[in-house]
Amino acid sequence: MTLTNLNDKTLLVVGLGLIGGSFAMACKNHGSVGRVIGYDRDAESLKGAMARKLVDHAESDLMAAVQAADIIFIAVPILATRSILTLMQPHLKPGTVLTDAGSAKGMVVSDARAVLTVAQCARFVPGHPIAGAERSGVMAAKADLYVNHRIILTPMAETEQDAVAMVTQLWESIGSHIDIMAIDHHDDVLAATSHLPHLLAFNLVDTLAKNTENSEIFHYAAGGFRDFTRIAASDPTMWHDIFMANRKSVLLVMDQYLAELHQLRNAVAHADGDYMKSVFGNAKEARDHFSQILSDRQLKDE
Amino acid sequence: MTLTNLNDKTLLVVGLGLIGGSFAMACKNHGSVGRVIGYDRDAESLKGAMARKLVDHAESDLMAAVQAADIIFIAVPILATRSILTLMQPHLKPGTVLTDAGSAKGMVVSDARAVLTVAQCARFVPGHPIAGAERSGVMAAKADLYVNHRIILTPMAETEQDAVAMVTQLWESIGSHIDIMAIDHHDDVLAATSHLPHLLAFNLVDTLAKNTENSEIFHYAAGGFRDFTRIAASDPTMWHDIFMANRKSVLLVMDQYLAELHQLRNAVAHADGDYMKSVFGNAKEARDHFSQILSDRQLKDE
Repeated sequence: MTLTNLNDKTLLVVGLGLIGGSFAMACKNHGSVGRVIGYDRDAESLKGAMARKLVDHAESDLMAAVQAADIIFIAVPILATRSILTLMQPHLKPGTVLTDAGSAKGMVVSDARAVLTVAQCARFVPGHPIAGAERSGVMAAKADLYVNHRIILTPMAETEQDAVAMVTQLWESIGSHIDIMAIDHHDDVLAATSHLPHLLAFNLVDTLAKNTENSEIFHYAAGGFRDFTRIAASDPTMWHDIFMANRKSVLLVMDQYLAELHQLRNAVAHADGDYMKSVFGNAKEARDHFSQILSDRQLKDE
Repeated sequence: MTLTNLNDKTLLVVGLGLIGGSFAMACKNHGSVGRVIGYDRDAESLKGAMARKLVDHAESDLMAAVQAADIIFIAVPILATRSILTLMQPHLKPGTVLTDAGSAKGMVVSDARAVLTVAQCARFVPGHPIAGAERSGVMAAKADLYVNHRIILTPMAETEQDAVAMVTQLWESIGSHIDIMAIDHHDDVLAATSHLPHLLAFNLVDTLAKNTENSEIFHYAAGGFRDFTRIAASDPTMWHDIFMANRKSVLLVMDQYLAELHQLRNAVAHADGDYMKSVFGNAKEARDHFSQILSDRQLKDE
């Protein structure tokens, strides 16, 4: 892949939370582009981004920011994607490359196709950095958030190769690793490996918290439960948005999970030890088979 | 609580796996008792216990071992408790104190009452160390397994106070912390905080492993899923035994969980964002409320 000279390019980061702020900071520190502009509709976030020197310029006027940009990284709550694209669309320069950080790609692609022109769509590279942190917001942004993390790009049929190459180059310049995946496949894989586990964890902590003796239940939290509570500490609104955005894939894997869980429940009820052993054994076997991947891999998942 | 002089006492550890072997090793290293005998029906485990100096004496004859013991720590698979008690019962010296390490206490108490005499039952102190490790067996035993861990004791109505005191003293001598809990309550709390989470994790990993694309699913495991696979790496037979031993409490909390999970499933299906937000918000609130307990506590749960 030939590298493009990005020294004369202006990067605009729309949304200066943990995800956008960290991306801006990393690109600025690495000199990945000529200039980094940041936009946020929240004045405090803009102020924070300037104070922390995450960007070269903090712009409160979206129209002006978009008109100056050669590459735009959209890092807003996923359900706000369509409205921000609608606001930006009339002001995009011809050829400006767009990418985003949404955790579900099917909905974002629909949003893009509904709002952007055909020519603009050809410059859109849907993306999903597999990274995060317990804290959120501009003050939590850090330059190394994406180092050695996987970034999944899901180009649309109409996305132009040079746009994918430019986004890839930008991520690689800050130490990330790119995987290319089909849009639907991304949403199925993430539903299974991230969205469903979060749903199960939120549900467990909520179920147990309703118990009148919940303080004691937390007090005696053994290993299993503690891992669940860690997951359930994630931002409720962000997860609400993700489930709304990836409903179809989540439902599919959730219904498989529920059907199996009912069988396991009945095995417990009827003391069917053979069934239990087969489920637990399969799970352990699968886990051990892939433990090399999980423990030795150099790439980090959040 | 007045301390008893245990220097002239003989401790017998029945079952030299991770749990029994680590207890024997800790008591021997701390000089908690006069002598530590180990019994295991597996000759290799006995050999390993001697080679690693976990015990002063490895005894292959259970009858001889029991006849010599003043305190007996039973660390066998929980479903083997009744049969080992049946074998030991005729040979117990009057006054010998018995304790165990089973993860569910109701069944163990039934076993004791079915097999032991009234006088022997008065010397039985059901116990559950909240500790473990990924590896199992005598070679995995380590002297510090229980340091700063909680040990739950669930004395029966008929258990004598001095027996509870002696078992407490033994655990505290190796750096553990004792909590006293009612039998049924222990089983409910552990069903909620440990047994159900393990069931959910085994079920998730099994469901996803059945997927034809499971290698990719493990490959892209994001944070949520990785925590689940860690739990699912536990020993399948041990967990089968625990669910068989604690069926009633597990079913109770599992049915609450399933009822809630179906509501959440329907909220996803019908895009009911308010319901999702309330569940996720409650979970996060509960988690944050108790995060102090979970992160700052000095006691370790496995």
